[in-house]
Amino acid sequence: MQPSATLDQIRAVNAAAAFNTWAGFEVTRADAGEVWLELPWRQDFGQYAGFLHAGMVGALIDTACGFAAATIAGAVLASQYQVLCYAPAVGDRFRAIGRVTKAGKRQIFAAAELFAITAAGEKLVAGGTAILITASA
Amino acid sequence: MQPSATLDQIRAVNAAAAFNTWAGFEVTRADAGEVWLELPWRQDFGQYAGFLHAGMVGALIDTACGFAAATIAGAVLASQYQVLCYAPAVGDRFRAIGRVTKAGKRQIFAAAELFAITAAGEKLVAGGTAILITASA
Amino acid sequence: MQPSATLDQIRAVNAAAAFNTWAGFEVTRADAGEVWLELPWRQDFGQYAGFLHAGMVGALIDTACGFAAATIAGAVLASQYQVLCYAPAVGDRFRAIGRVTKAGKRQIFAAAELFAITAAGEKLVAGGTAILITASA
Amino acid sequence: MQPSATLDQIRAVNAAAAFNTWAGFEVTRADAGEVWLELPWRQDFGQYAGFLHAGMVGALIDTACGFAAATIAGAVLASQYQVLCYAPAVGDRFRAIGRVTKAGKRQIFAAAELFAITAAGEKLVAGGTAILITASA
Repeated sequence: MQPSATLDQIRAVNAAAAFNTWAGFEVTRADAGEVWLELPWRQDFGQYAGFLHAGMVGALIDTACGFAAATIAGAVLASQYQVLCYAPAVGDRFRAIGRVTKAGKRQIFAAAELFAITAAGEKLVAGGTAILITASA
Repeated sequence: MQPSATLDQIRAVNAAAAFNTWAGFEVTRADAGEVWLELPWRQDFGQYAGFLHAGMVGALIDTACGFAAATIAGAVLASQYQVLCYAPAVGDRFRAIGRVTKAGKRQIFAAAELFAITAAGEKLVAGGTAILITASA
Repeated sequence: MQPSATLDQIRAVNAAAAFNTWAGFEVTRADAGEVWLELPWRQDFGQYAGFLHAGMVGALIDTACGFAAATIAGAVLASQYQVLCYAPAVGDRFRAIGRVTKAGKRQIFAAAELFAITAAGEKLVAGGTAILITASA
Repeated sequence: MQPSATLDQIRAVNAAAAFNTWAGFEVTRADAGEVWLELPWRQDFGQYAGFLHAGMVGALIDTACGFAAATIAGAVLASQYQVLCYAPAVGDRFRAIGRVTKAGKRQIFAAAELFAITAAGEKLVAGGTAILITASA
């Protein structure tokens, strides 16, 4: 099965952002209103105890929300995002699933969940919300 | 003038975190309840339009809040942080100033402001709040 | 069918809070980790344009989250809550559904959605998140 | 000294909102970008332990932020607000001080602090942030 137009589009946005390329963000799924964003673990991402840095947790959540909004509204900018750290983020790979909760005329609201993936399975380690505004307006 | 014990301490925590070292976070000031965290701009940090990525904005805010809490409570973990993006973050250098707003027994509340620094001066580009919990408890 | 022990319990907490009684909060459903909280509209609740005041939107979201946490952790206190206003809250009745997203040892994370109910149907008008801490600790 | 035009204006908005009138919100100060909102304690406002209900804490914070934004941008609607509960809110009177942190073209960012006032003095019991959008746009 070939990737959807939406997936191609979001992958292009992902490739255009230097930070996303540096970090190694991978868009693995994209439909209208929902995007999966994945990141393989790297030592560079650790905080003092070796867990995924809360800043990277937030970057994944913010980006997954922004990409979910982009599937509906095109180019957007983050206005606000909130990160809730449920548990230490330890994994071989991370997956943030972003979903649009409400698409308004001026603002798009989205939410995301972050899962840590290991050989033992998946674990929900963080969540968050975001407000995006259209970039052009 | 030599650095304060607090500054030495927070610099040691900063040096122990792989992400902070990779990004180039610099602790330039630390007193009880207040920390200045700076970051020289690098192309790696850009989002699709070349501004500082909202994820990096959040990483600076979260870290400045965490370090401010650490000056009072020692090792802490982020429970929640909120990032408010006031304006595109464009600068040669960024400075996040984190301050403890309330230090409780179980939770430390902090807030931070992020300034973009250019030859033309400083501009407030983002703000945020954080809740930290002590790591040992 | 008679109400569950959980429902009785949460109704007792609801009855014990002066504000909830004044406002007319009704607990219509309560299971482990999920609570439904309803409020019939009254003119007293309006903001300047006659919509449900954002303060009342937040009170419903905060309370639904707190009650959801209480089904798991007993007496709790709000540490943080966030309110996202998706659309003007206009209805004959409002229903907030609160759910625990992560129950940790020291903190319980919850989220809620608020629906406005009219003869025409239900509409999602707001959402939010909350962090609760156990009251006794 | 007679009230400023701004104070008269914000008091008119306050008087026009049924909820504010019911609760007894009093605007005691208003300048461009800053508003003081006060509330005398009443038993009706209690949560289960008799403290000011977190919903009322949020209503004061949201309203103080909205009024601060209104001094600059006229009629506004809350898009998001966050409430941080620092300590049990116990007092004879409460004062929320709202301040605009950034006034953009489409969004106004504000923050507020809530003080509990007793014969013994004032105590900071809560804080928060808000994003407001102009009502007309």
